[in-house]
Amino acid sequence: MSDSPSAPGVVDLLGVLAYAELTAFLRLAEDAASLAPTLDDRAALGELAVAEYAHFRLLRDRLEALGADPARAMEPFVEPLDAWHAQTGPSDWLEALVKAYVGTGIALDFYREAARHLDPSIGSLVDEVLVDEGRSEFVVERVRAAIESDPVVAGRLALWARRLVGEALSQGQRVAAVRPELAKLLVEAVNDDQAEISRLFARLTEEHGKRMAALGL
Amino acid sequence: MSDSPSAPGVVDLLGVLAYAELTAFLRLAEDAASLAPTLDDRAALGELAVAEYAHFRLLRDRLEALGADPARAMEPFVEPLDAWHAQTGPSDWLEALVKAYVGTGIALDFYREAARHLDPSIGSLVDEVLVDEGRSEFVVERVRAAIESDPVVAGRLALWARRLVGEALSQGQRVAAVRPELAKLLVEAVNDDQAEISRLFARLTEEHGKRMAALGL
Repeated sequence: MSDSPSAPGVVDLLGVLAYAELTAFLRLAEDAASLAPTLDDRAALGELAVAEYAHFRLLRDRLEALGADPARAMEPFVEPLDAWHAQTGPSDWLEALVKAYVGTGIALDFYREAARHLDPSIGSLVDEVLVDEGRSEFVVERVRAAIESDPVVAGRLALWARRLVGEALSQGQRVAAVRPELAKLLVEAVNDDQAEISRLFARLTEEHGKRMAALGL
Repeated sequence: MSDSPSAPGVVDLLGVLAYAELTAFLRLAEDAASLAPTLDDRAALGELAVAEYAHFRLLRDRLEALGADPARAMEPFVEPLDAWHAQTGPSDWLEALVKAYVGTGIALDFYREAARHLDPSIGSLVDEVLVDEGRSEFVVERVRAAIESDPVVAGRLALWARRLVGEALSQGQRVAAVRPELAKLLVEAVNDDQAEISRLFARLTEEHGKRMAALGL
């Protein structure tokens, strides 16, 4: 069963997702503290941060239920995820918003794809974690308003979003190299079918494009 | 009715409490990110941070229900509370833990005293916010264990706790000076009765002493 602690790909998937959520929580809180222009904005980004922590809690509890040690399951992913955040520290509020929306969106799509082919009980847990519940709507509003009042902003933020994606792909390759079991979850899922792999990348690209369009980028 | 938006002391009380919770959330998250020695510790301090945000949400919703603008209600308290945090930035994990436990404990006692004499529906909201639910137990365990393995630590942390209290009193006086309505909540509550004021300070001191004892300081 893929739902047993002995399935290393599953523990890896829950581990990388758990650390991604824990560290997203902390980074969003940091951005809220240092970059939010108003108290309302600070609270709104704080709300996104807290949602990430709630996801972390679900994943940690699931790891424990599987008999895995959460800290040990997260450990292999600390360095690549910290590196991604270090290389994508936003320099202002709009960059922080785009990172919150686009960056986590890409990561979530990736996890969703991996989870799609797992034991259904894990798949539904991951789905629960990934639900956005409209919390990030305020990001879309803020970014669109900023572009409307100064269209020059759009070019800079579009470049920024590309950098977020580029750095994410680079770290993703590192993770795949050190955790082949995790990479295999995706490859097995598609039975080494080249057409299926192409469709996977098409879906990821399409979802990213939808987010960029939502932001007006 | 003290439960109307026109009672400035009530909006002030909810405002200072809301900003205290919002900023405690962000500072605890920052300490968790930068000072926690392990992933488990990072997650545990993150849990405390998230609880503060949940309290902020309750208070903000209540301010809105009273017809007050939450950001405007918090604004007068941003500077003194930020100043307190700036002057009490922990330099290591143990200082962060003591600050989380002792610092917020003092603040919470103070709010509890102020709320005791308000409209009962506000009083019970404040009580709900102030409930600790055993979340800070891990702080007590960590600090006691550190003192046990190196008794010299106790002296340094006891000094640190005194500094936290001293800076809190100093900022408290600033707040009382700029928001006399808030200060009056306490004074009215005790009817200018000098014996009652003495008992109030005795209670605050006693609660602080209990926390210090719990930490082994």
